[in-house]
Amino acid sequence: MDFPSFSLDTSLLEETKKPDPEVIYDVLILGGGPAAMSAAVYAARKMMNIAILTKDFGGQVRETSEIENWLGFQSINAKDLADSFEEHVKSFDIAVSLGHGVKEVKKEKDIFNVMTDANMYKSRAIILATGKRHLPLNVPGEKEFKGKGVAYCATCDAPLFKNKKVVVAGGGNSAFTTARDLLKVEAEVTLVNSLKGWQADEALQQRVKKIEKANLLDYHEIVRIEGKDTIAAVVVRDLEKDKEEKLDANGIFVEIGFLPNNESVKDLVELNEHGEVVVDCLCRTSIEGLFGAGDVTAVPHKQIVIAAGEGAKAALSAYNYLISKSLI
Amino acid sequence: MDFPSFSLDTSLLEETKKPDPEVIYDVLILGGGPAAMSAAVYAARKMMNIAILTKDFGGQVRETSEIENWLGFQSINAKDLADSFEEHVKSFDIAVSLGHGVKEVKKEKDIFNVMTDANMYKSRAIILATGKRHLPLNVPGEKEFKGKGVAYCATCDAPLFKNKKVVVAGGGNSAFTTARDLLKVEAEVTLVNSLKGWQADEALQQRVKKIEKANLLDYHEIVRIEGKDTIAAVVVRDLEKDKEEKLDANGIFVEIGFLPNNESVKDLVELNEHGEVVVDCLCRTSIEGLFGAGDVTAVPHKQIVIAAGEGAKAALSAYNYLISKSLI
Repeated sequence: MDFPSFSLDTSLLEETKKPDPEVIYDVLILGGGPAAMSAAVYAARKMMNIAILTKDFGGQVRETSEIENWLGFQSINAKDLADSFEEHVKSFDIAVSLGHGVKEVKKEKDIFNVMTDANMYKSRAIILATGKRHLPLNVPGEKEFKGKGVAYCATCDAPLFKNKKVVVAGGGNSAFTTARDLLKVEAEVTLVNSLKGWQADEALQQRVKKIEKANLLDYHEIVRIEGKDTIAAVVVRDLEKDKEEKLDANGIFVEIGFLPNNESVKDLVELNEHGEVVVDCLCRTSIEGLFGAGDVTAVPHKQIVIAAGEGAKAALSAYNYLISKSLI
Repeated sequence: MDFPSFSLDTSLLEETKKPDPEVIYDVLILGGGPAAMSAAVYAARKMMNIAILTKDFGGQVRETSEIENWLGFQSINAKDLADSFEEHVKSFDIAVSLGHGVKEVKKEKDIFNVMTDANMYKSRAIILATGKRHLPLNVPGEKEFKGKGVAYCATCDAPLFKNKKVVVAGGGNSAFTTARDLLKVEAEVTLVNSLKGWQADEALQQRVKKIEKANLLDYHEIVRIEGKDTIAAVVVRDLEKDKEEKLDANGIFVEIGFLPNNESVKDLVELNEHGEVVVDCLCRTSIEGLFGAGDVTAVPHKQIVIAAGEGAKAALSAYNYLISKSLI
């Protein structure tokens, strides 16, 4: 049996300028999603000396399929949108460290030291825009159907499931709000919660439960997602009877929580109870010179256009900070 | 001599559904710029019953020419961008009152009453996104060359004036930051201030004054802007000698201040010292149920992508507010 040979695509790594560990940058931008990319565009246009440290460009945009709430596009392929963002960033002569995650951010006097897997870089200001990751179900079919029926954002994707059969995994407010959004577009919804009982606010539960098209299964776990090109069914197990059941479904929303990618700063800045970086309305964190933007922050609505707005704000706040300190 | 006959283009007014004064809407969106349009897209996708009250669509986007900092477009014609936003909004079945300004917002018990020139409308929540207006110079040539050399936003337009000769009208921090942005792109800059002396922070002044390409004329007023298809010169008057002087120039940035369009709410909500509506990080104003977004608010950076992000945030905050009150 032949296995496809693995080779690292280095084309992207070669075409961009590398950051220089000897340089003290005005701003290092950590992350490559919409917040980071918007920050890069704004920072580059202010002629600051910047570098981007990221594993990849696009962030969570590349985890979805079709986007209908990026202002100006009634519908756009998520990959195309992410590509257009990336091209915009690359139209500037910005140094990029691609392929390495950021391990730790430290501040010594007025200089930040940022460790990646490969190098250490220095700067006078930081824009942290490392995003978040969804807690996955970790069941067969989840990866295969991601963006093809497996969704993680009702605000983004609920309208795509008009009149469809949809499973919502989870039992908290996010799961019930997702159910509500889906019921509004006439979807038939089955909420599946692995715990006994439901965690959402009672009022929200009541509003969902009274709708005929809403079904609720608590103390059931998701076993696998089945289908060929699209999802056909979600298999659940009744944990009381220890019995599997197959639910007809066109899609599944996973709303069992998420984790902010805060690892590099968790010992440095103030976090909220969810581990999100606390920022004020100017994107300032508890550490002077360190700004936060996008889904890694405590800003509650995780949306592309909001992240892009916050990224721009963080870049302009960093610019004003460096000017006020006479550092640029 | 024949004058072109004036006729109101009512095509736009006819194609959209009108709001109903008898209905209590979930949300009324006041304004038609990027913040309002983004709020409309997000609110419509949440299936809320909304209406938009605005004089026109596009807001200040239509006052500029080319936009280079809307993520995803290295450069886009401002009219095209505004049109794409407007089409996105109109792809939803939203009632729109077009052509009438909002005169006053009042709250009676839990219901908002919004007066336009023509009607009164009711809602449970409001998104105020009425924008701001620049203080104009009010000199000949300013209107004719708006977006063709007359600019009001250095963050947006400074890179377009690389190696050009540019006048900056104003003497405060905005004027000096604009001068700095222009000097960074190797423009030759003349700051013109009608007062004696300069109002900007001393450190910022020093940084601009030490650059050879910066010229400073205080106690001079702008008299007119001259040119044919593009700007050729800016005529100023030395107020001490009462003598006119012609400055070669390819462009002029007007940085003499702006006014938030707060008239409809100025007796209702908390404003800051600049008359901007005070909002928290969730776009909440001092009045429950009234949310603010974009340039009318105290959010300091006036940018399209920031306004669009704030509009989305305001819509989601309004949605959460109405759910928490069991009003939807």
